[in-house]
Amino acid sequence: MSQRPVTIAFDVMGSDHGPLEIVRGAAQLTLDSPHLHALLVGDSEQINAALREVRHHGERVAVHHAPDFVAMHEKPGQALDSKPRASVLEAVRLVKAGDADAVVSAGSTGAGVLACARTFSLLPGVRRAALATVYPTATGRGARNDPFSLILDVGATVDASADDLVAFAVMGAAYARIISRNERPTVGLLSNGTEAQKGPPRVVEAHQRLQTLEGVRFIGNVEGVDIPKGTADVVVCDGFVGNVALKMLEGVSETVMELAKYAYKEKLLWRAGLALLSSGVQRLKEVTDWEQYGGAPILGFDKLFIKAHGRSKARAISNAGKVAAKAVSHELGAEISKLLT
Amino acid sequence: MSQRPVTIAFDVMGSDHGPLEIVRGAAQLTLDSPHLHALLVGDSEQINAALREVRHHGERVAVHHAPDFVAMHEKPGQALDSKPRASVLEAVRLVKAGDADAVVSAGSTGAGVLACARTFSLLPGVRRAALATVYPTATGRGARNDPFSLILDVGATVDASADDLVAFAVMGAAYARIISRNERPTVGLLSNGTEAQKGPPRVVEAHQRLQTLEGVRFIGNVEGVDIPKGTADVVVCDGFVGNVALKMLEGVSETVMELAKYAYKEKLLWRAGLALLSSGVQRLKEVTDWEQYGGAPILGFDKLFIKAHGRSKARAISNAGKVAAKAVSHELGAEISKLLT
Repeated sequence: MSQRPVTIAFDVMGSDHGPLEIVRGAAQLTLDSPHLHALLVGDSEQINAALREVRHHGERVAVHHAPDFVAMHEKPGQALDSKPRASVLEAVRLVKAGDADAVVSAGSTGAGVLACARTFSLLPGVRRAALATVYPTATGRGARNDPFSLILDVGATVDASADDLVAFAVMGAAYARIISRNERPTVGLLSNGTEAQKGPPRVVEAHQRLQTLEGVRFIGNVEGVDIPKGTADVVVCDGFVGNVALKMLEGVSETVMELAKYAYKEKLLWRAGLALLSSGVQRLKEVTDWEQYGGAPILGFDKLFIKAHGRSKARAISNAGKVAAKAVSHELGAEISKLLT
Repeated sequence: MSQRPVTIAFDVMGSDHGPLEIVRGAAQLTLDSPHLHALLVGDSEQINAALREVRHHGERVAVHHAPDFVAMHEKPGQALDSKPRASVLEAVRLVKAGDADAVVSAGSTGAGVLACARTFSLLPGVRRAALATVYPTATGRGARNDPFSLILDVGATVDASADDLVAFAVMGAAYARIISRNERPTVGLLSNGTEAQKGPPRVVEAHQRLQTLEGVRFIGNVEGVDIPKGTADVVVCDGFVGNVALKMLEGVSETVMELAKYAYKEKLLWRAGLALLSSGVQRLKEVTDWEQYGGAPILGFDKLFIKAHGRSKARAISNAGKVAAKAVSHELGAEISKLLT
């Protein structure tokens, strides 16, 4: 019944809340899960100082010093070129070398994608990686009734061919199967209409191929309206459209918050209503707190990289570590390649 | 001070609420605006029956019989092929022949776009038409402080070249200038990052060209988050991305309504809160009732076609007619061509 040990390399640097929060999350993971090891990558002084402050399982925490890191505002390519020992690169290299099994980082997304592309190998049958993310939906899914869908690609690849879209479908389905315990996740292809012939040529061709692909439960094209509705467990699109869609969801929720604030100031009646609603809003926020679901995986490489949100607190980091370990234990890479080769 | 008479051809058929609602809107227009004429196109029996029921200016209402029409569920190409005298085609032909100046229709969008493409000519310098639409934003703009932005293309053209995106920018800016009385509307190009080099090649090239194009106040790339925020007065994108984005906005608002309903049933406290909020929500709904702003113009042709929502009531139809007349009076076509040739 004992699980095979899994080591997660945590890129401790470059997140919004600083190294302590990342160390705290990794430390908690070693207390919660006896088969998990944390390899903390970053400034060793800061890491050791943080470790003195937080409870952790001493035998399952190791530190790897990286003298540099990529900041959020830096251009990924330039930053990686000029900082060959940046923490994100070191973390990725440790996984490549077999010293760890997967990476968790709350640093720059672009640097993470690029570090993977420069270090890892693409899985057999995959020509382009995808960044996937979960987002809250109106309906639940999977064994745990998660009110989340997975969408990919949301920005790793701006132009995707029909082949790439098919690979994204396989990758997303495999991830949902393992992480959400959703045995036969439904996969929808994002287009401007539900009919098979709708969309640009690459989408039309991907639709045809997905219809006959075994192992993927393809439900056809989905439209923009289906994203918040949660019509499909996995939504497939190119990184350009996916990025616009994802950021729009963020923008909508910000705008709703703005309007609520405005209402709060403006009208006593609204104010009273909002006060009464606040416990409900709080619960809604908890339900839709997607960070607890472990961040955004970069899929398509032989090794897994999970990008946690820059704003991640310890709990989100710890959950990202658990998700990464689960993907490793269930051999996500093999699961993907099986259907593509 | 008297305005030149303008005639609007109303496609009376194929909307969700039936001919009476369209006739009512057109009739109201003739009462409100002494320079406007309504040419009602559709089943003359139904139109005449409707006219007997609603007040209208008898000298400025005419009827043109069309024996057929395109229903919402029909495939546009097949429908137009098999129904050469469908109301939408007749309306477009009447404008082409000079019997009317612009079309308003609440019927099938696809049939409208196709009827225009088969009948009208593209403006000099325009290679592809675009469907534009307004959507509510957090901030107001223009002389009337409209809380709306214009986005185009939202579905007329799935693949757009850099040239097309530049033309869309010119078309959208001209429309915003005339309709929203916004002298120098800001134009943003939708991409997956604000930097000039972000996005697929067509977007990168369009960015470069827009930076040096005179007459368009280009503010650079905007991201998905900027759509609901209203960062730009006009958002430019290809029809594939635009369609996904627009439908996603619809889906989000539907999902919020669902959650509100759920909350209403679920919890007494929420219920009380929502009841108190309802007057606020009602006002918000009025503010964001974009139908009063006149529907979605098909831009790029020598003649204007305004697609009102299928669910439009009389007021929305009447406003679409006013908007169409305004565009005609201000010579929207010439305004667009001026910058493109």
